[in-house]
Amino acid sequence: MLEKYRQFLPIPKGVETNDLGEGNTPMVRSGTLNPGGNLLFKMEQMNPTGSFKDRFASLETLLIKSSGRQAFIATSSGNTGAALAAYAARRGLDCFLFVNEVVPESKLNQMPVYGAKVFRVKDFGISHELSAPIFQRLQEFSVEENIPLVISAYKYCPDGMEGVKPIAYEIVEQLGKVPDRVFVPVGGGGLLSGIWRGFCDLKENGIVDSLPKMMAVQPELNDTLVTPLSQSLDKAREVSTTTTISGLAVQVDIDATMALQSVKASGGAGVLVTDEQIRDAKTRLSMEEGIYVEAAGASSVTGYLKALADGAVSEDETSVCILTGHGLKDAATGSDIASRIHDITADDITKELVA
Amino acid sequence: MLEKYRQFLPIPKGVETNDLGEGNTPMVRSGTLNPGGNLLFKMEQMNPTGSFKDRFASLETLLIKSSGRQAFIATSSGNTGAALAAYAARRGLDCFLFVNEVVPESKLNQMPVYGAKVFRVKDFGISHELSAPIFQRLQEFSVEENIPLVISAYKYCPDGMEGVKPIAYEIVEQLGKVPDRVFVPVGGGGLLSGIWRGFCDLKENGIVDSLPKMMAVQPELNDTLVTPLSQSLDKAREVSTTTTISGLAVQVDIDATMALQSVKASGGAGVLVTDEQIRDAKTRLSMEEGIYVEAAGASSVTGYLKALADGAVSEDETSVCILTGHGLKDAATGSDIASRIHDITADDITKELVA
Repeated sequence: MLEKYRQFLPIPKGVETNDLGEGNTPMVRSGTLNPGGNLLFKMEQMNPTGSFKDRFASLETLLIKSSGRQAFIATSSGNTGAALAAYAARRGLDCFLFVNEVVPESKLNQMPVYGAKVFRVKDFGISHELSAPIFQRLQEFSVEENIPLVISAYKYCPDGMEGVKPIAYEIVEQLGKVPDRVFVPVGGGGLLSGIWRGFCDLKENGIVDSLPKMMAVQPELNDTLVTPLSQSLDKAREVSTTTTISGLAVQVDIDATMALQSVKASGGAGVLVTDEQIRDAKTRLSMEEGIYVEAAGASSVTGYLKALADGAVSEDETSVCILTGHGLKDAATGSDIASRIHDITADDITKELVA
Repeated sequence: MLEKYRQFLPIPKGVETNDLGEGNTPMVRSGTLNPGGNLLFKMEQMNPTGSFKDRFASLETLLIKSSGRQAFIATSSGNTGAALAAYAARRGLDCFLFVNEVVPESKLNQMPVYGAKVFRVKDFGISHELSAPIFQRLQEFSVEENIPLVISAYKYCPDGMEGVKPIAYEIVEQLGKVPDRVFVPVGGGGLLSGIWRGFCDLKENGIVDSLPKMMAVQPELNDTLVTPLSQSLDKAREVSTTTTISGLAVQVDIDATMALQSVKASGGAGVLVTDEQIRDAKTRLSMEEGIYVEAAGASSVTGYLKALADGAVSEDETSVCILTGHGLKDAATGSDIASRIHDITADDITKELVA
């Protein structure tokens, strides 16, 4: 990815990109959710470590390495940690991850696989009040020890976040045109902001002559952007509630104002969905389309279905939903799954079995 | 994938391929295992369900669907089941999976996610003696009920297995030439056979003028092919031992004779490795290269390292190792992982932590 879109990315001249095959993820046309063929899924869960964060991690670690550093510290609620750990291994950097207390076990276990040292910090991620002083301590620590603090947000790592932009270039290349709408999950807001910046690059360089409407999808419980947007405000807000969907639980304005302004500039809109609706859409995606994503990864599709039901978007518009993380990263277990697995003997293999 | 290489695949005219973005997996150059840059990894673990089996499943289910069928039964030791379940969902087919008793839980749990009905059959997969009558019962059942029995092997599903061939087309396209050697794990033998057939397609059609040496990698405990090959025999053999590496435990000759003859025709060779060497190579891949595969997925690399150490292959030869299944499908847990995760408080964030 880095080599192909080098002209649009802040990569120092002469630096070898040496990536892991991130990016260039497929676009798959929906079979059942929009039988007319106007809904497409951008399969970001098919990146090397299973999420779009690989795009950020690849560029950010390349920049750290090429600046002559040997190590970095980073925060993560799950996918960023695995991505940074993998690219740190790839580039020969030491990686120290500070993760919150609510990171799902399967995401947690992926990080040390690549040799990262992982610290799970008590109270981190429980609420903004409890997290803020911990985050501040990490910022101080980064300064004291002169070691970069990596956070997957434009607010903290703007150069690395430019790695997100190729999602837009690829969409246009794969679709052969600019879609009418792009549905993007908003946690911190960096993903949506980066994709929008990518489309703007293409327009500014005369490669396309229109822009898509950016559609920001948020869980009702993390509505930092959607309500302020609908009130025509220019700034995102803090909220006190929080979603149960891993990866989307951001209560403060990190890149949310940047995302809000992107949506506004594009003529798009926000969509609020419930955690339950997200889980339902995740199930529909796997059972009907054959696509297995983690819950956060299905939230864009949830927003699309909601907007369709509300009449805010038409079935005839070409819409792209960004799928973000693989289902295997936060694997389904429990009774739903167990009820479809049956222990039998050879003698049980009779007509009744498949009836 | 299916559309792009349609001319080489047995797809009926006029049938829409409607795939899930399988194939076109990246080729990544090794950073540390061969610093000279002559070793490449074909990242088959980045297919939609996390393994190369998607290539087979996509084509096989398309053929079933286009023949007017509504359902099929299948056997699986793990990855095939998830792949078939996903593509069955995609194509609106009912999928009934008969899995063996030793399938890892994470692979088992992936199958019902896509709506498949899963039957774990007592004694299936424990040994050839115990498995044979169960397999025979499934074959009878398929005939009695007139429902296709799907098995990812040329012996049983030759048309669907042609879906493996594009791995060869992609390697040549991505590398810009035919590699000197291709290292492939051999369980049943279908993967190696399919890739070889793909290279032969290119030669027969005048697209390339040479062929690579095919290198068959097997665990010592499932040596159905390597020893017969080294004895210049024309047929694979049955063995009584079995590997602990999920996915490679095949004791009988399914496509192994076909694979043996492919290796012979190519001027390649076999490599035997221990289960422990496979696990070591898997760890090196994630810790040094940043690539996380399941153990079977690392066996090709194990064979490459062994052949290099034995002097059977030179570092200067361009070698491609096929990585087969994602690490997330059989996720690392246990003490190795736990020892690199530390529970701390904010007060612990001091210099000592990253020393």
